[in-house]
Amino acid sequence: MIGRLYGVGVGPGDPELLTLKAARILEEVPVIAYPAPLEGPGLAREIVADFLPGGQVQIVLRFAFTPGEDAGAVYDRGVAAIAAHLERRHDVAFLCEGDPLLYGSFIGVLARLGDRFPVQVVPGVTSLAACSALARTPLSTGDDVLAVVPSTRGAEAVAAALDAAESVAVMKIGRRWPMLRDLLHARGLLEDAWLIERAGMEGERVRPAWKVAAEAETPYFALLLVRTRR
Amino acid sequence: MIGRLYGVGVGPGDPELLTLKAARILEEVPVIAYPAPLEGPGLAREIVADFLPGGQVQIVLRFAFTPGEDAGAVYDRGVAAIAAHLERRHDVAFLCEGDPLLYGSFIGVLARLGDRFPVQVVPGVTSLAACSALARTPLSTGDDVLAVVPSTRGAEAVAAALDAAESVAVMKIGRRWPMLRDLLHARGLLEDAWLIERAGMEGERVRPAWKVAAEAETPYFALLLVRTRR
Repeated sequence: MIGRLYGVGVGPGDPELLTLKAARILEEVPVIAYPAPLEGPGLAREIVADFLPGGQVQIVLRFAFTPGEDAGAVYDRGVAAIAAHLERRHDVAFLCEGDPLLYGSFIGVLARLGDRFPVQVVPGVTSLAACSALARTPLSTGDDVLAVVPSTRGAEAVAAALDAAESVAVMKIGRRWPMLRDLLHARGLLEDAWLIERAGMEGERVRPAWKVAAEAETPYFALLLVRTRR
Repeated sequence: MIGRLYGVGVGPGDPELLTLKAARILEEVPVIAYPAPLEGPGLAREIVADFLPGGQVQIVLRFAFTPGEDAGAVYDRGVAAIAAHLERRHDVAFLCEGDPLLYGSFIGVLARLGDRFPVQVVPGVTSLAACSALARTPLSTGDDVLAVVPSTRGAEAVAAALDAAESVAVMKIGRRWPMLRDLLHARGLLEDAWLIERAGMEGERVRPAWKVAAEAETPYFALLLVRTRR
C-alpha cells in the first residue's frame, strides 16, 4: 500500500475558477506540495488559501526563476520529500496554477515520480482560457489552427506562428513586448490582438494591443492573443 | 436595465470538472440555453444535470451537425429567444462543453449579442487538458510550441503542425484516423502519440497511438496528442 499523487490544476488566479474536484481533493489530502518563489507562498498556494482545512503538511518547492538556476535540483529535493509521504501511504496533492500539464511545474514532478506511484491528474482552467474570457475574444474557432508560443522561444518562433496559424497565443511576455509589437505591426495585426496582464490577479488589465505603446512595461504574467485572419 | 448573458464552460464531461463559478451561476440564473443535436439533451446539458435547481426556462439550439446545415439560422433563432429574455431583465447562461471560446458554440452567440448586452464569459476546463490528464502526458512544456488543429482542416494542416511544433493536439478525429496514422507513421511518431476517445464520457478510452490499427473506428470526440521531439 502506497499513497496517491494528485497533480491538481487550481486555475488561473480567481479562486472561484477551481473545479469541484480540485476543491474536494484539497479537503481530503493530508499533504500538499506546490512551487513558489524564494520568498512568499506563491500563486498556486494563494489561490487555494480558502479551501485548505488546516493542519496539512506543506512541501514547498522554491524556485529562483532565473536563467542560471538548477531547477532540476529543486525538483529532486521536492520529490524526495513527496515520495517519503507517499511511501507512508499519505496522499499528496501537488498544486499548479492553470493546468498541471500545460507548461505546469507538475510535469517535472510527474517525470520523476510517475513510474513509482499511482498518479491522478486533475485538469484545470488555463490562463489561455481566462485571458480569452476577459477579452471576450475567441481563442480559436471553426477549423482554425491555434498556436501557443512562449515568448521566451524568441522572435522567429512567434513570427512563424503568426504566419501559419489563424489564432496565436503568446505566453510569458515580460520584457519582450517591443519585439512582439514589431512583429504585429509588420504584419498589420496590431488591431487584431489583445494584451491581457495578470488575468484574475491583482493588477489585472485587458487592452487592445494597438493601445499599448512599445515602451510600455509588461509583466511576466502577460498574454497576447492574436487572430491573424478575420 | 437589461439582463446579463453568461457564456459558461461546463468542462469536458465529468461533472466534477465544473468550476465553482459555473456551479454558482447555474443555480442563480432563471434561464439556461445550450446547443444539442436534433434529438436528446446534448452533452453540455447532461453534464450539468445535477446542478440545476429546477424551474428554469430552457432554450435549446438544435444543430444537425451535418455539412449542408445552415447553422447560422439555428443561431439566429436561438439568440432571438435569448435576447427576448435579456430584454426582460432575465439573466441567461449559455452552456458550452469545455471552454466557451475554444471551438465553442458560444462564439456564435457572442458574435450576435456581444454588442447589445452585458456579457460575462466563465472559462472552463478544455477537452485538451482532460485528455492530457487521462494520458498523463504533457500537453506542452518548457519553451515548446503547441499547435491545436481540428482534423477537419485536412491532412496538409496536420502535417504542417507536426513538422513545426513540438506538441500537437488534433481534435475532432472521427473517420480521419487512417489519414492521421499515415502522417504519424511517415514521421516515425507513432510511438510518441496518444489517442484519447470520449474523455470523461461513457466509453472513455486512452491508448498509445501505435496500438490503434489503421482500420479502427474512432468517434468524433477523439483527440490525438503528439510530442514530436523528446
